[in-house]
Amino acid sequence: MMKHLRIDGQRLWRSLMELAEIGATPKGGVKRLALTELDKQGRDLVVGWGRAAGLAVTVDRIGNVFMRRAGRDPARAPVIAGSHIDTQPTGGKFDGNYGVLAALEVVRTLNDAGIQTHAPIEIAIWTNEEGSRFVPVMMGSGVFCGAFTLEHAYAARDIDGKSVREELARIGYVGAEVPGEHPVDAYFEAHIEQGPVLEDSGKVIGVVPAVLGLSWYDCEVTGMEAHAGPTPMPLRKDALQAANRIMGQVVEIANRHPPYGRGTVGFVQVFPNSRNVIPGKVNFSIDLRNVSNDQLNRMHEELMTYIDTVRRESGLAIHIERVSHYPPCPFHSDCIDAVRRATDTLGYSHMDVVSGAGHDAIYVARVAPAGMIFVPCKDGVSHNEIEDAKPEHIEAGCNVLLHAMLGRAGAAT
Amino acid sequence: MMKHLRIDGQRLWRSLMELAEIGATPKGGVKRLALTELDKQGRDLVVGWGRAAGLAVTVDRIGNVFMRRAGRDPARAPVIAGSHIDTQPTGGKFDGNYGVLAALEVVRTLNDAGIQTHAPIEIAIWTNEEGSRFVPVMMGSGVFCGAFTLEHAYAARDIDGKSVREELARIGYVGAEVPGEHPVDAYFEAHIEQGPVLEDSGKVIGVVPAVLGLSWYDCEVTGMEAHAGPTPMPLRKDALQAANRIMGQVVEIANRHPPYGRGTVGFVQVFPNSRNVIPGKVNFSIDLRNVSNDQLNRMHEELMTYIDTVRRESGLAIHIERVSHYPPCPFHSDCIDAVRRATDTLGYSHMDVVSGAGHDAIYVARVAPAGMIFVPCKDGVSHNEIEDAKPEHIEAGCNVLLHAMLGRAGAAT
Repeated sequence: MMKHLRIDGQRLWRSLMELAEIGATPKGGVKRLALTELDKQGRDLVVGWGRAAGLAVTVDRIGNVFMRRAGRDPARAPVIAGSHIDTQPTGGKFDGNYGVLAALEVVRTLNDAGIQTHAPIEIAIWTNEEGSRFVPVMMGSGVFCGAFTLEHAYAARDIDGKSVREELARIGYVGAEVPGEHPVDAYFEAHIEQGPVLEDSGKVIGVVPAVLGLSWYDCEVTGMEAHAGPTPMPLRKDALQAANRIMGQVVEIANRHPPYGRGTVGFVQVFPNSRNVIPGKVNFSIDLRNVSNDQLNRMHEELMTYIDTVRRESGLAIHIERVSHYPPCPFHSDCIDAVRRATDTLGYSHMDVVSGAGHDAIYVARVAPAGMIFVPCKDGVSHNEIEDAKPEHIEAGCNVLLHAMLGRAGAAT
Repeated sequence: MMKHLRIDGQRLWRSLMELAEIGATPKGGVKRLALTELDKQGRDLVVGWGRAAGLAVTVDRIGNVFMRRAGRDPARAPVIAGSHIDTQPTGGKFDGNYGVLAALEVVRTLNDAGIQTHAPIEIAIWTNEEGSRFVPVMMGSGVFCGAFTLEHAYAARDIDGKSVREELARIGYVGAEVPGEHPVDAYFEAHIEQGPVLEDSGKVIGVVPAVLGLSWYDCEVTGMEAHAGPTPMPLRKDALQAANRIMGQVVEIANRHPPYGRGTVGFVQVFPNSRNVIPGKVNFSIDLRNVSNDQLNRMHEELMTYIDTVRRESGLAIHIERVSHYPPCPFHSDCIDAVRRATDTLGYSHMDVVSGAGHDAIYVARVAPAGMIFVPCKDGVSHNEIEDAKPEHIEAGCNVLLHAMLGRAGAAT
C-alpha cells in the first residue's frame, strides 16, 4: 500500500510559487538575503505552514528551525529533510526553497494519508546557506555540526557593518536550543541540480554520491593611486592590472584540472573606482573546486605559486587569505542506497551526479548519515533570476524524498 | 616697479588650507564631489572671499562663476585666471583649488598695491572639472566653449540617478548668463603638474606647450550568470574573464605607443558581484591618451580590433562606446610666451612640460588664447589624498601667474 503513496505535486508547486513572492524580482527571480526583513517574512510563512500541519517548532541559537511530526517511538531520533530559504542577490525560486517545501509536502502527504511513522519526521530550515551577505557560507548547518563556533558566526558582518547576532535578534529567530544538540537519525536534502548534467542526459533523478570540495579566498592587491594622465606607464603601481593577472590565472588553474576543476572570480571591488584614477587597491574573491582532495590541494599550490610570481614581478603588496575550505564530501551509503531504492520503486530514470555546489547536507553529513536527491533545472542555470524547473521533475524528486524518508523512518500504520 | 611686485605666499597657503577643510578626509585629502552640499560650501567660501576683495560676481547657466576686478578700460575683455574646486572621491588639496585661489591671490595683491590694470582681471571657477560624479568631464568649460550643449550637460545623471540640472539648482548655482557669452581676452591656469617630471628635473616652473589628447570609453561585457560550482568550465559565459582580457590589453596598447601613450582602467562594476556566482555582466571604463592625433587614433583602432577578437573568441556581447574625446591641445603662443617671460623676469628655473591631464584651459583655448603654469607636486602624485606641494613652489607659480596676467592686462598705475 505504501508503495503507491504519492505527494501532491500541484500543492507543492503552489507553495513554491507563494514563497517566491517574498522578495520576487522583476525578472521572475527572488532576492531574499539571509536575516533580512524578507528572510523573516519567508521564515514566518513556512513556519506558519508547519504549525498548520500540526508540527512542533523549535529554533536553535543560530536560527536553524526544526519542525517535528511525532513518531510512534518517541525515543528514536528523527529522520530530517530540509534545506534553506535564503537566496542569492539575484537568485531563483527553487534553490534551497525546494528542499524545505518538499519536506513540508512529505509531511502533508503523510497527514492526508493518516500514516504514522516509527521515527519522528522533521523539517529543517538552515540559516544563511548562501553566504552572499555573511561569510561563512552554510552558516547554520556549519554551527550545527561544529565546523565553527556560534560566536564566530555571530561576529560575521555584512558590507554595511551589521552583525549576524544583531540581525538574527532583529528578525526574532534566536532560539534557546544549543546548535548540534538536536538529534538526527538521517538527513535528506532534495535540490535542483544547479548544473546541466541531468538535463543533457535526459534523466529525472540524480543520486548524489559526493559533493565537490571547495576553497574560497579573499585577495587584496595594493598599488598606488595616481592621476591616469600624467603618470608614465613604467612608473605606475596599478593594482587592477596585477589583480587581472591573478583573476585570469584562476580560470587557467581550473582548466588544468578537468573534468571537475572549477575556478571563479565572482566578486571584485576597485578603489577608488574613478575612471581617471589608477586603481590603488583591488579586492576580489577566488573560488576553487574539485572532486578529490589531491586535486584541490594542487590547485591551491598553483594559485599560491602564481601569486608569488605576480608579487615579485609587480612589486605590489598582495594579500591572500583562504576564508573557507570544505574537503570533497562523499555521502553515506545508507542514504545513497535509500534514494536509489526509492527511485527504483517509483520507476524514475536516474543517474549518479556529483554535486558542484555546496549544500547544508555536507555539514550534516559530519554528524549523521546524509544524502541528496537532484532534479534537473532548465539549462543547468541556478543562482540566477531565470532559474527554472519543470513541475513534473519537482514532483518526482519529492516522491523520491517521501519514499526515502519512509524507508528510513518506517511506516507504523 | 611692477617687476618687484610679489604675491603673499603665506596668505595663499592659508586660503588653500581653509578651503581644504571642506570635505577634508582622514588621510589629509579632500572629497568634494561636483554639485554636492560640500561643493556648495566650497563655492560659497570662495565667492565670499571674492566679494570681500571687491569683486563683482556673475554666474552662468551651467554654474560657472566669474568674479571681476574692473579695469581702467571697461571696453576691454577681461584677462581671466582660474580652475575648478570640485575634487576626485579621494582627491587632494591642490588640484584645481590652486588655480582658483592663485587667481584670488593675484587680485588681493593688486588690491594691496593699489594697482589698476587696463583690462579687467577675472577669476573663473568652472563647474565639474573632475567628471567623477557626472560625465562629461570638464563640464562647465565644455559648455562655455560649445563642446557640448547646456541641455546635454543638464541631463547627465550620477550613479543615484540625480541630474546636473537638479543638483545645480539645489545648491543655488544656476545663473542667468548664457555660457560662452562671457568675453575672454586671455586665460591662464596655474596647476600642480600631477606628474613626476618637474620634481625629477629639479625645476620650479613648467611652461606648458600642450596637453595630451584623450579618449574615454564605457565598455560593457554581457555573459551569463550561473552558479560557480556545478557549471563546467567549457560551458561558462564568464563576463569578467572576457573583460579582463580587454583590461589587460588597454595597458599593452599604451605601452606600444611611448613615451606619451597612457592606458588606464579606473572603474569596474561586476554583476551580481557575489563570490559564488559567475559574473553575468561587467561594466568598466577605458582611458587612452597620447600627444598626437595620429597616435591616439592608432590606439583607438587597436582597441577596437582587439575587442572584435575577444567578441569573436568568447561569443559574448561586448558593447563599447567612446563617451569623451579631446584631441591633443597645443596652447596659444602668446600665452606660452607670457608665462615664459614672467618666469624669466622672476628668475625661476623652468622647463617645458606636456600635460598628461585634462584641464579647463583646453576648452577655453577653443575660444580665446590660453596657457598654463605648472608647479611640482610631491612624487608626482595627484588624484590622491596624499597629494602635496611645497609652499615655495605654490608661491612661485602664483608670482608667475601675477606677472603673466599683468603683462597681458597692462598696468595703468
